[in-house]
Amino acid sequence: MMPWLLAVTLAALTGFTVGSGGTERNCSISPPYIPSTAVNSTIQLQDLRKKMQPLKISAYIIPGTDAHLSEYIAPRDARMAFMSGFKGSSGTAVVTQNKAALWTDSRYWVQAEREMDCNWELQKDVSVGSIVQWLIAEFPKTGQIGFDPFLFSLKKHEEFAASLESSNLTLKSISNNLVDEVWKTRPPLPPDNLIRLPDRVIQRTWQEKVQDIRRQMSENPYEPTALLLSALEETAWLFNMRGNDIPYNPFFYSYTLVTMNEIWLFLHLERVTDDLKLYLNSSCHGPLCVQLQSYDTVLSEVRKYVAKPQVKVWIGAEYTNYALYEIIQPQEKLFTSSYSPVLTTKAVKDETEQRVLREAHVRDAVAVVQLLMWLEKVVPEGKETEQTAAQYVNMCRQKQKDSRGPSFETISASGPNAALAHYSPTNETSRKLTVNEMYLVDSGGQYLDGTTDITRTVHWGTPTAMQREAYTRVLMGNIEISRTIFPSGTRGVNMEMLGRKALWEIGLNYGHGTGHGVGNYFGVHEWPVGFQSNNIPFTAGMFTSIEPGYYKENDFGIRIEDIAVTVPVKTKYGNNFLTFETVSLVPYDRKLIDSTLLSPQQLQWLNNHYKTIRSVLGPELDRQKLSAEKAWMLKNTEPITDAGSSLSICSSSLPLITLLFTLIQNLM
Amino acid sequence: MMPWLLAVTLAALTGFTVGSGGTERNCSISPPYIPSTAVNSTIQLQDLRKKMQPLKISAYIIPGTDAHLSEYIAPRDARMAFMSGFKGSSGTAVVTQNKAALWTDSRYWVQAEREMDCNWELQKDVSVGSIVQWLIAEFPKTGQIGFDPFLFSLKKHEEFAASLESSNLTLKSISNNLVDEVWKTRPPLPPDNLIRLPDRVIQRTWQEKVQDIRRQMSENPYEPTALLLSALEETAWLFNMRGNDIPYNPFFYSYTLVTMNEIWLFLHLERVTDDLKLYLNSSCHGPLCVQLQSYDTVLSEVRKYVAKPQVKVWIGAEYTNYALYEIIQPQEKLFTSSYSPVLTTKAVKDETEQRVLREAHVRDAVAVVQLLMWLEKVVPEGKETEQTAAQYVNMCRQKQKDSRGPSFETISASGPNAALAHYSPTNETSRKLTVNEMYLVDSGGQYLDGTTDITRTVHWGTPTAMQREAYTRVLMGNIEISRTIFPSGTRGVNMEMLGRKALWEIGLNYGHGTGHGVGNYFGVHEWPVGFQSNNIPFTAGMFTSIEPGYYKENDFGIRIEDIAVTVPVKTKYGNNFLTFETVSLVPYDRKLIDSTLLSPQQLQWLNNHYKTIRSVLGPELDRQKLSAEKAWMLKNTEPITDAGSSLSICSSSLPLITLLFTLIQNLM
Repeated sequence: MMPWLLAVTLAALTGFTVGSGGTERNCSISPPYIPSTAVNSTIQLQDLRKKMQPLKISAYIIPGTDAHLSEYIAPRDARMAFMSGFKGSSGTAVVTQNKAALWTDSRYWVQAEREMDCNWELQKDVSVGSIVQWLIAEFPKTGQIGFDPFLFSLKKHEEFAASLESSNLTLKSISNNLVDEVWKTRPPLPPDNLIRLPDRVIQRTWQEKVQDIRRQMSENPYEPTALLLSALEETAWLFNMRGNDIPYNPFFYSYTLVTMNEIWLFLHLERVTDDLKLYLNSSCHGPLCVQLQSYDTVLSEVRKYVAKPQVKVWIGAEYTNYALYEIIQPQEKLFTSSYSPVLTTKAVKDETEQRVLREAHVRDAVAVVQLLMWLEKVVPEGKETEQTAAQYVNMCRQKQKDSRGPSFETISASGPNAALAHYSPTNETSRKLTVNEMYLVDSGGQYLDGTTDITRTVHWGTPTAMQREAYTRVLMGNIEISRTIFPSGTRGVNMEMLGRKALWEIGLNYGHGTGHGVGNYFGVHEWPVGFQSNNIPFTAGMFTSIEPGYYKENDFGIRIEDIAVTVPVKTKYGNNFLTFETVSLVPYDRKLIDSTLLSPQQLQWLNNHYKTIRSVLGPELDRQKLSAEKAWMLKNTEPITDAGSSLSICSSSLPLITLLFTLIQNLM
Repeated sequence: MMPWLLAVTLAALTGFTVGSGGTERNCSISPPYIPSTAVNSTIQLQDLRKKMQPLKISAYIIPGTDAHLSEYIAPRDARMAFMSGFKGSSGTAVVTQNKAALWTDSRYWVQAEREMDCNWELQKDVSVGSIVQWLIAEFPKTGQIGFDPFLFSLKKHEEFAASLESSNLTLKSISNNLVDEVWKTRPPLPPDNLIRLPDRVIQRTWQEKVQDIRRQMSENPYEPTALLLSALEETAWLFNMRGNDIPYNPFFYSYTLVTMNEIWLFLHLERVTDDLKLYLNSSCHGPLCVQLQSYDTVLSEVRKYVAKPQVKVWIGAEYTNYALYEIIQPQEKLFTSSYSPVLTTKAVKDETEQRVLREAHVRDAVAVVQLLMWLEKVVPEGKETEQTAAQYVNMCRQKQKDSRGPSFETISASGPNAALAHYSPTNETSRKLTVNEMYLVDSGGQYLDGTTDITRTVHWGTPTAMQREAYTRVLMGNIEISRTIFPSGTRGVNMEMLGRKALWEIGLNYGHGTGHGVGNYFGVHEWPVGFQSNNIPFTAGMFTSIEPGYYKENDFGIRIEDIAVTVPVKTKYGNNFLTFETVSLVPYDRKLIDSTLLSPQQLQWLNNHYKTIRSVLGPELDRQKLSAEKAWMLKNTEPITDAGSSLSICSSSLPLITLLFTLIQNLM
């Protein structure tokens, strides 16, 4: 599932035009046309504006995140959606007394036009600079811009503050969320208890992890005395625990404060079973006893800690909210790095994590092979749709050991729907699958031992020449990254153009990122690993998706996504070099591969990978007694030959052959 | 000439070991060994420490730059060298009452050990973080760190401030430079008059440039009322003027303040001839009249301007010193961007600039061809050295039209000397050139119409297999970048790994950047164009060097550097794509090319480029009546065939040929 890339570089390529059909609003006619999918936002806007007045703020910013700066959020945190109707997973809303505006990226423009009424204007440049320029235009003389400090990372606050520096506007932190105050039907917390992971998927106990983190704290030259963890995956990782607060993401609302002698875990206490209390040593006091505290007390407890003499709190700037940051005063009591040592430690998987994550991918490949085989058979019968295909793959995964459901909402998209990034079928949009359209399926599973994410694009009939060329070049991009040898410590962002190079050669490109980290039963985007500019350098033992694509508007979409792990590689002269090893084990659509475009090295990589699929997935299919699937897999992993290419390159030996023929003729 | 890369990525690769021969100091024996090349720094350190005491500062930072944040500086600005003896072009010195430390990168470690006495310790991690950690270790409790605000960019100040945030140390701006106070023999300003460029190398007059910049100011949403230019090349570009204050760099000390109605030019007034006063309309008042002001008044004049109501000053954060930044108060009167609009406008060359810069490269190629041809002849005679080769190429350039001397000190390096980055031969180090060693020459010329920079590596005898493989892979890197097709707006840093990929495959790499901008008679590193992480995205009309390399310590060094311009390219499907067109016209050493390693596309690029050299350089050699050079060029640009490669790939047709031979034998 692709991470979105908001680079200036690609802005020019994402110029989707917004259609004016009946499914989208039209605010330029009188009366405006509002589709039935839109939400009437009049009352909530009135209510919010009333709350804004006594605070003397000109505008109020509503980000689409939660207090943990999560990428995916729970329904109770969907404040932007409540206010505007827009349910996309990325955006920022701003409300003034006269206007309401929503910023979201090109993935979501069509969706926003379907879900918002005409109280809202849609803004398409999602940079902080664009929001600030809009605010400056609205309030050129003076103004206070209100925001909830829990919903701003300190990084985001810095960006806003820097952009506002040269204006007459100032930011005003407002501790009570104004949307929550008017949101009478805000969903409650889910009641689910927390779980601990089984020992068989774990190498390091939470005690070992805490000791490792304390070692890193004591080795840090700034001598922090405490580490404050805010991202939900940080606490989940540290304690080998999981929850169920956010759809598709096994997280639970929590903060952790670790010092050299104590551990405070802030969470909803009612969800902690006696068994977990025992597991966490919560009844003792000491360096390896966890003091359980109510989630709501984090601010007051951190404030108390900071008030002590000679303390210094370490926080990660990307995932700590401004509310926590602003209470760590004076400055000497604060130490920041982009990411906490938990996130950077977690990024490198230990031996057990690597082994079980590979195993999860073997089982996951069984499910995807089942989907592809089934579709090949049933699509010509004309009864299946995007929705039934999504249901089928979810069902296949459910049957696999340790399954915990899908890792995100399956993207099952046929024909033009696949050109809409992040499309998921609904009753209104679901297309029937036919042999005349390309089909893209991007799906993944949560398993107790790992998270998976894979995209395959197929054609059951006869692809056009352009579809075949584009598919092949997307595959070349995937292979070019996968087979690259690079020094340990190279950043993904400095290699990701290899995923685009073959497309660039013919003037094509794609408007999303090239890959994101993935791990052991966490969110499907496991930052800070990946190919984005703010991702950390690659070292051995990191798992990332590799997912170039190509999208032709109103026509088709292609994406080929695999998960790969960074592994050491022996080179002729140097040490400390890495390459990728692909752990996704599903063959590509042979019909769409024009092997004459592939370099000999790319072809060799492809055939080697197919050998790996046979040797690793084959036994699993045997074990599960899936002989039809095994046969399908073997057929689809036959070595691909480079007939065309060797013919054209060998034209240099043609004169010799001609000469010999002439000689023979003369002799005869 | 390569820009240095201080990336973490490469830190592991630059672990040069410092030798302990007689040329380097040895501070670990008693008494210490100090080579004759070292400077006795005792007196200047005593003097400086006395100046520090009344100011109550624990440490004083001495950067290696000037008030314009120049990369290359004049002798009178070489404060770090005066204090420490170390004359390298990059570094930072810090002096406390008990210690003195110098931070410089791996290029200069050997040099620093040769030039410094044992008053100084050498620090090898040049990040601001490393300097700050050293300071924190020295002063754990409290302390003020003094610095000259003219020698810190506001960016650098921000980095120091952020790193010190979590410590007990604070920065203290000290307006008088303490080194200057103790530097009795500080060189005076050079007396040279300024010049204006001839009309034939100019498309836009300074008036047109000013109007263009004013247009950009008025279109900026932050509505700046003035633009302050600090980098020397900014003022030089704006007024089409040049000077001679810094060796190899045609700049003059200056600042410019542009408003919608006025232009202030701060410079040393005694160098402005009557002719120039006329050229600058300096006797009138109005939007296109230049008010000439004494260089020293810039602070007071900017302060006066800022005191006016409703003004806002635009500055570029990378090239404005902290002294100017801190007087632009309050914050609403300041607007910053990374680079001023002058630097970003200047980055894209207009038609005339492109044409004359290409022309300068044609003449420059004549000089380099003359050098290579001469060396081929004379080296076997055993009388030439690194120094005489450098003198020869300088002399060849001097004979070319519009020559203004070399654009930097020629790097002429044989055998192991070429493995020392940024080596230039001295009487002590200059090696005799022989047929048994590889030779690297990195040189460039200043011409009224352009600046050039080119590196060639050659072998006059029999290279080893590894030398040949490494050279070929460096060339493959150069070609891979040069032939890439990419969307306009792509950043160089996201493509530069193409220069390394062929080396990475066999475990090799290089520890410097891959290229820097170059332009029309400016400094040889013309930022912000290039492949560094802080460079701006490529658009059409930018000139950059492309210069991968490989260095084997104590053995040899390879670098292949060309200048290329970004040009639009037609692709099969897309618009707005670019590629590079190489404007350096000197053939590579055929002896060192293993053509079997090149891909068919790389070989095609190489042979096409050789055709271009013939068609563009050929007529120039004719014009200059250099028939021997023409013959040499033609011999060295013969098409290269891919015999080896086609043999190996075409092994598939071998059975057929064998069959035919057998048939013939049978028939005979």
